[in-house]
Amino acid sequence: MRRRRHATDTVERLQLRTPQYHRLPNGVRVVMDHLPWASSALCGLWFAAASRDESAQHNGVAHLTEHMLAGRTRRYSVRRWASAFERLGAVLDAFTTKEHTCYTLQVLPQQLPQALRLLIGGILEPAFSWRRLRHERRVILEELAFYEDDPEEFLAEQLEQVLFGEHPLALPIAGTRHSLARIGLPEVEAFYERFYVGERAVAVLVGNLSELSLEQLQQELLRLPARREPLPVRYPPVNLPARERTLTHSAQQAYVMMGQLLVQPTPRQRFCLAVLNFLLGEGWSSRLYQRIREHHGLAYSISSEVEHFSDAAVWSITAVCSAATLPQLEQLLRQELQRMVESPPTEAEIQRATETLRTQMVSSFDSLPERMGILARSAMEGRADAMADPFVQALEYLQQLTREEIVETAAQLCVPERWSTVRLLPERLSDGVAALNR
Amino acid sequence: MRRRRHATDTVERLQLRTPQYHRLPNGVRVVMDHLPWASSALCGLWFAAASRDESAQHNGVAHLTEHMLAGRTRRYSVRRWASAFERLGAVLDAFTTKEHTCYTLQVLPQQLPQALRLLIGGILEPAFSWRRLRHERRVILEELAFYEDDPEEFLAEQLEQVLFGEHPLALPIAGTRHSLARIGLPEVEAFYERFYVGERAVAVLVGNLSELSLEQLQQELLRLPARREPLPVRYPPVNLPARERTLTHSAQQAYVMMGQLLVQPTPRQRFCLAVLNFLLGEGWSSRLYQRIREHHGLAYSISSEVEHFSDAAVWSITAVCSAATLPQLEQLLRQELQRMVESPPTEAEIQRATETLRTQMVSSFDSLPERMGILARSAMEGRADAMADPFVQALEYLQQLTREEIVETAAQLCVPERWSTVRLLPERLSDGVAALNR
Repeated sequence: MRRRRHATDTVERLQLRTPQYHRLPNGVRVVMDHLPWASSALCGLWFAAASRDESAQHNGVAHLTEHMLAGRTRRYSVRRWASAFERLGAVLDAFTTKEHTCYTLQVLPQQLPQALRLLIGGILEPAFSWRRLRHERRVILEELAFYEDDPEEFLAEQLEQVLFGEHPLALPIAGTRHSLARIGLPEVEAFYERFYVGERAVAVLVGNLSELSLEQLQQELLRLPARREPLPVRYPPVNLPARERTLTHSAQQAYVMMGQLLVQPTPRQRFCLAVLNFLLGEGWSSRLYQRIREHHGLAYSISSEVEHFSDAAVWSITAVCSAATLPQLEQLLRQELQRMVESPPTEAEIQRATETLRTQMVSSFDSLPERMGILARSAMEGRADAMADPFVQALEYLQQLTREEIVETAAQLCVPERWSTVRLLPERLSDGVAALNR
Repeated sequence: MRRRRHATDTVERLQLRTPQYHRLPNGVRVVMDHLPWASSALCGLWFAAASRDESAQHNGVAHLTEHMLAGRTRRYSVRRWASAFERLGAVLDAFTTKEHTCYTLQVLPQQLPQALRLLIGGILEPAFSWRRLRHERRVILEELAFYEDDPEEFLAEQLEQVLFGEHPLALPIAGTRHSLARIGLPEVEAFYERFYVGERAVAVLVGNLSELSLEQLQQELLRLPARREPLPVRYPPVNLPARERTLTHSAQQAYVMMGQLLVQPTPRQRFCLAVLNFLLGEGWSSRLYQRIREHHGLAYSISSEVEHFSDAAVWSITAVCSAATLPQLEQLLRQELQRMVESPPTEAEIQRATETLRTQMVSSFDSLPERMGILARSAMEGRADAMADPFVQALEYLQQLTREEIVETAAQLCVPERWSTVRLLPERLSDGVAALNR
């Protein structure tokens, strides 16, 4: 296999430090990434507990549980709980994705042990009540309405429904009006009991950790229970035939997303996809940008991106334009996909892509929040090589890609017929767009 | 003056490094912030050349000039220009605010000198042409339509128009359909000649700079011309009486922004404002969040923020809710402002706010992009103390604030009658909202 030579650095020259991994008896995985030069520290407590673990009937229970946990505890009222963190200067945040619920803590090193004790204490002593549940449900209903007004957010959700079909990854993170109405206190409690256990948890600490000992950390994390019952298995999604879905909305511009699913990609395939995505629609010299924006001036916003799940990847293209030009734009998108098969990336194109991806990666290693995310996902997905350094590993994969495998991946994925399409059209259609409603 | 004691660190204990400042004979200010542990480097080339330097007639010329400069050069076509950066693994980006145009370069240390030469070469050899201008104007018209579909973006622009009145800070960054139609090649060339000069430029380099010498850097930056004609002066805005503006849009939710202007704030006033803003609507235990979201469950999104200009600050509150609850929500917003005067922040509240702001600040010092922005604005605004370390300085200001001056600033700013209001209502109004259209 030919190793890619980079104009820039070798892996060895980079100022990378290797994070330390531990596994506690209750199953909690711990990653400590000590950066002695940092002035702050960041802690992420991640649980593999999210919408993909839900049924359609109780869709939204993971996100609702996060809302209830982050708000107050058995010991503290809402206001006292928030104040306790703020007195330490600790910034608490929480979010739910389709695969994880995460609680983060941004803190100065000296306050790390105390802030961590407060966070874990809170998660272990939830104040679940019907009153609290009804309140958070009301807030989430406002959240749903808020996101429905965001065309790109709304369309991304539609595309995932088309691509994942009946698989739980199709379920929206926050649930729906219907499913939320069906979630009561017993469902929240059952979800919490089942998923907030050591085996589903990863704690990642990044930054200046000099004030924290592993023993202190263990003492806190060991309070999380080991699993109480067999944990549900996550099944990978399957490839479905391409579909189209056209909806209307009340705004002025037309939005289109095309996308396809790559099921259980290998790490090498993920990196091939990164290179192809860069060349198709991420880079500034990318084919879509050059053709759609530079040559035809058809859209201000045109790009492609890859969203990674633990056992799948969604590759998508998004464009925003005036409704009248949408048919022409869609035709160009399909042409550029086809061209990726017929005129596959040259060695020079691939070299440019890998150089730039490499700079982006290394720059992300210089960021505490990005290090935290990379380490968490790596430990979470329990990859066979999770104990290796994910930073060095990523750079090595990129370096080792051959043109042959990139071209092969393009031939497999860039066939236009494999791509599903979802669109949002302004309610008052111009004549030119009627043709789309086949 | 009583110094605030922090539960956490003293300034001296932080791992801060002092950036190096230089001023070149052609007026360019250079800030070098060498972080030997970093694996990457970031360069920002900033020009004080933006919409506040424009007339209403030619509004948008700064942003259009940025589009034309970042795209291609006399020597390189669009595609060759982008490829030249990508071959070095350099990530080029550009943006325009109301006060600056900025070109950034993310790069691995070894490629920094070459990438920098490419960037500065491009800015010095623009390929201005009517063909290029018409193309970029078309792209910007798409950009305008894109932002008009974003209710929060649209409303923020409306609020600034209400607050700044006839002052050029009221002008939208990208211009309007009308003003763009009036900008021709002579206007772009005149803007470029006038503002892309040494006296208006700041170069900030952050990260691992070990491969770059100051001499190399000077050699490149000295190619920028000194000013060719007297530079226009920027005048500060003035306070106007509060106004209301109600518009309708086609989306489902109602959006409201209240805001006020603080003209030529002192650094101490800016930090008082940061504390008040945290307590009003930024912190998780903030008064607005607790009252509107926790107590009444009226809005998912409720927050306040401060936007800083070189000689002004805009303090604003944004809320999104269903149209039917908007009157109640607005009433609560005004009550909470009034309460900030009648029950001003206690010493405990202020302590919590300063602790948390301090953690946020120190965490941002750990981020390369954030360091770059802080250093650029500090050098750009040519503050008397710009040669001091802005990181240490910020922490010292925060530490020195007294409750008296915070309470005094609250008494001055939180009077509800001083706040202007702009709203976006769904086109199909419910009865409850009609009352708002006074």
